[in-house]
Amino acid sequence: MSQMNAIVMKNGSLSVNQIDRPEPGPGQVLVKSLACGICGSDIHITRHTSDVFDVYKTLGIMDASASDDQEVLLGHEYAAEIVSYGTETQGSLPVGSRVTSVPILLTQGGAGVGVMPGVYGAYSEYFIVDEALLLPIPDSVPSEAAAITEPLAVGLHAVNRSEIGVDDVALVAGCGPIGLAAIAALKQRGVKRIVASDPQDAKKEIAMAFGATDFVNPVKDDEVALAAHLAGEHKVVIIECVGIHKLINDFIMRAPAKAKLVVTGVHTTPTTLNLAYATVKEMDVIFSYYYQPEEFAACLNEIAEGNVPWELMRTGKVGIDGVQGAFETLFKPNDHIKIIIEPWRKGELETL
Amino acid sequence: MSQMNAIVMKNGSLSVNQIDRPEPGPGQVLVKSLACGICGSDIHITRHTSDVFDVYKTLGIMDASASDDQEVLLGHEYAAEIVSYGTETQGSLPVGSRVTSVPILLTQGGAGVGVMPGVYGAYSEYFIVDEALLLPIPDSVPSEAAAITEPLAVGLHAVNRSEIGVDDVALVAGCGPIGLAAIAALKQRGVKRIVASDPQDAKKEIAMAFGATDFVNPVKDDEVALAAHLAGEHKVVIIECVGIHKLINDFIMRAPAKAKLVVTGVHTTPTTLNLAYATVKEMDVIFSYYYQPEEFAACLNEIAEGNVPWELMRTGKVGIDGVQGAFETLFKPNDHIKIIIEPWRKGELETL
Repeated sequence: MSQMNAIVMKNGSLSVNQIDRPEPGPGQVLVKSLACGICGSDIHITRHTSDVFDVYKTLGIMDASASDDQEVLLGHEYAAEIVSYGTETQGSLPVGSRVTSVPILLTQGGAGVGVMPGVYGAYSEYFIVDEALLLPIPDSVPSEAAAITEPLAVGLHAVNRSEIGVDDVALVAGCGPIGLAAIAALKQRGVKRIVASDPQDAKKEIAMAFGATDFVNPVKDDEVALAAHLAGEHKVVIIECVGIHKLINDFIMRAPAKAKLVVTGVHTTPTTLNLAYATVKEMDVIFSYYYQPEEFAACLNEIAEGNVPWELMRTGKVGIDGVQGAFETLFKPNDHIKIIIEPWRKGELETL
Repeated sequence: MSQMNAIVMKNGSLSVNQIDRPEPGPGQVLVKSLACGICGSDIHITRHTSDVFDVYKTLGIMDASASDDQEVLLGHEYAAEIVSYGTETQGSLPVGSRVTSVPILLTQGGAGVGVMPGVYGAYSEYFIVDEALLLPIPDSVPSEAAAITEPLAVGLHAVNRSEIGVDDVALVAGCGPIGLAAIAALKQRGVKRIVASDPQDAKKEIAMAFGATDFVNPVKDDEVALAAHLAGEHKVVIIECVGIHKLINDFIMRAPAKAKLVVTGVHTTPTTLNLAYATVKEMDVIFSYYYQPEEFAACLNEIAEGNVPWELMRTGKVGIDGVQGAFETLFKPNDHIKIIIEPWRKGELETL
């Protein structure tokens, strides 16, 4: 059986291992990873493996007796190339076609690609996807752009979950990939006033390019007060794209009456909230997770139509042997938004 | 100036004091209290005065420097009789008319009647309401029934905030006044399956009379599992009417995917939540507070039309000198649902 390079996360450490190349099962396709984004959740599971496994165990996704040193093959934001089809497939796209997909395996009980033990991920040279979920990547779309479809879909889903009206004021807290994706989706939806906030002033230009109408550095100014001022009689919809659990209570305390708070971060640390304020303000707190397949497809289409300045989001590229170093960089304060792994080549992190 | 008996809550203690009868200001009406319900929030502010004042101070409703021994004249669920009109009024209803109203004073900056310092309440013999908010009580409706309009409106508002569909399954947690009110509103809305839960088995009969289709004692059986089973592909909408903050996390942990949780209790104690579960389940957490005037009017109408078995909710009556004793009863485990104060008479708590 052929071997391949794979990034293995085990109990908080990454390494490049030689493992068997997977075989596609019924309904499955073996693909070669062309480009894969490093997601905040990849960083999170690496730093807080035990917390994330606890959630999986409570939800019944992982066996309750599994140890914390289970290996995870990371990578769920990908562009890939079809290598071979398993049984019970149609061969609907030619071998060699570039594809992406919603990163789940319906053929494996809905398991998440690249986020849990027992499933291959796109940080590796090869991995497995479902034929039924394949989306061809248009020729005009570079692989690294197609890999950004996934975070864009997370942002679009959060905006759709918010049911925001065009006259409501959006406050997108955090201009990382999900925040920028939310901004793009809000612009596409026709929301007139989109306030972006981020403690890095350099994010302003990027946020505006994605569609923000206003930018606030929350260290210097009160982003919630600005959104409330702009909203007047309309609603303020805060879309939390930071992933710092203490901000949830902060937003509840500072939000104006009738505000909606959309939580996109997965906060595995227990969070203490002063719910009386949420009650008195009659807030809606909406939790958003993943996306629908049609949202994913819509985001790939937005990229193909040139509506998303994805180059501004992609701040680094790295080969398979540089992933560990890239994680070290991301563990510390840094200016990166999205680093794209190209698992088929070697090379240290290159900042673009 | 005439004197009156008033129940004064000061730093956790109640007493019957002789104080000046209030004078109605512009747009205001002096009313005589005929019947006033004891609300869970009256108990809460008495036991946790400092916590509630902290919330008021943070919201700017109370001066930040005010001490915890500010007096509160309780009582916001009332039927009353018009005594005299202030200036700038129309005299739209004859003196002697029985009325109720949404318990706020638009003439006093939207202050809440009977819930904060500086405003009169309906536990007292006389208090002040706005002419603009007066609703006449139909002759067929006893005063003690009209006093139940307010908690019914709280329940109706929570149901309206939930936007529950008729095929969704409601789980009403807690069969106190707000829970029973929510059940009545769900029935009125046409929701087909209404699961009520309460640790007191005796609540079953009352919950069913209000419109519940199923009853679970959560000490013995899993009410969330039953609701999820009944819902199938439809949503479960949990309406929290208990006011115990630890239940919020409990419901987040136990709820099925896509569940909605409507919080009606005012949880002034900071609450620790495992938000990752809310995220992975894509829950909506909706905070409901007070009601709209049209919801209040609709509830009075429901009583008048005989659609609400309010007698089952009213478990006790008490005169003004028995209120302190009634609170002592309510501070301990008890079987009461709603005790009605008749401030115009004397008498110890009478269980009905």
